[in-house]
Amino acid sequence: MITKSELRTRQKQAAALLKRAGILITAREKAAIEIADFGLNEFTRTGLGVLVYVNTDRCCAKELAMWPRQTCPEHIHPPVGRDPGKEETFRCRWGKVYLYVSGPKSQGRHCQPPASPKGAYTIWHEIELNPGDQYTIYPGTKHWFQAGPQGAVVSEFSTRSTDEKDIFTDARIQRITKIA
Amino acid sequence: MITKSELRTRQKQAAALLKRAGILITAREKAAIEIADFGLNEFTRTGLGVLVYVNTDRCCAKELAMWPRQTCPEHIHPPVGRDPGKEETFRCRWGKVYLYVSGPKSQGRHCQPPASPKGAYTIWHEIELNPGDQYTIYPGTKHWFQAGPQGAVVSEFSTRSTDEKDIFTDARIQRITKIA
Repeated sequence: MITKSELRTRQKQAAALLKRAGILITAREKAAIEIADFGLNEFTRTGLGVLVYVNTDRCCAKELAMWPRQTCPEHIHPPVGRDPGKEETFRCRWGKVYLYVSGPKSQGRHCQPPASPKGAYTIWHEIELNPGDQYTIYPGTKHWFQAGPQGAVVSEFSTRSTDEKDIFTDARIQRITKIA
Repeated sequence: MITKSELRTRQKQAAALLKRAGILITAREKAAIEIADFGLNEFTRTGLGVLVYVNTDRCCAKELAMWPRQTCPEHIHPPVGRDPGKEETFRCRWGKVYLYVSGPKSQGRHCQPPASPKGAYTIWHEIELNPGDQYTIYPGTKHWFQAGPQGAVVSEFSTRSTDEKDIFTDARIQRITKIA
């Protein structure tokens, strides 16, 4: 849960991160940035700033603003009806992001997940994304990601986004942020 | 038709436009920028620089680099098999772009199409996009667009792109550029 005042402060900070990445947004878009705390009340550790540019029945584009060392927790995009599940491409625009996807455990990993119950993180194959790097995640691929020490701005290009359908490994998580 | 030498020069210019918009690309991406002349041999009048970030079976993201007053000619994205046709969102990042879509003829329009045979341009409903503005074109909508006096950089978020299937109003046009 976050307060309305915290929401506004975080939206300003997210807009400043986007600006640092050279991304210009309108005042209306700034006020529409989602501050996702995943219901864990530790936003700068587990959270994400999300600006949805477009989300139609067929495709979606977003900017993700990440605070230093902030983590988007492990999840998967399941099939929804006839949809085989969301497919998404992450493109790093500014800062650095470490992406963890299904695959062989990487040695010398750069991140620790935030403190959480046993079994909340299970995926350890690391992909480092610097500005200009990108990676496509196909449906059925568990993943989580963490920003580097300065934070990160990541563009996401995807099929239709249905965040409320995402399945998180950590059973405590509530994807839709409550605003008090 | 363009020469290999012109291709490299135009790719450098397109990368410079993207840089002006704050968009960082890799050396490999720079060398992969498509310089589309639509077969008309008048690139700075009718043409487009295109960098495809991703184009899967389901979705696509591109950056479009446009020279001052350059026009992308009128076309439509037809249904292809089970696909109802490409849906695309244009988001202006830098400069200015005038988009023309099906709809009532706008008065006081800001653009003239390039000199072309009668009937090559038939759509006169104007939408002006400045940085941070965007517009979604659904399948079955004829459209063309022209950059403002400084040029433009436009992000395109869409369903799968099959450029070779586009239908242009001007019958002279060949979508796939020949490189000599």
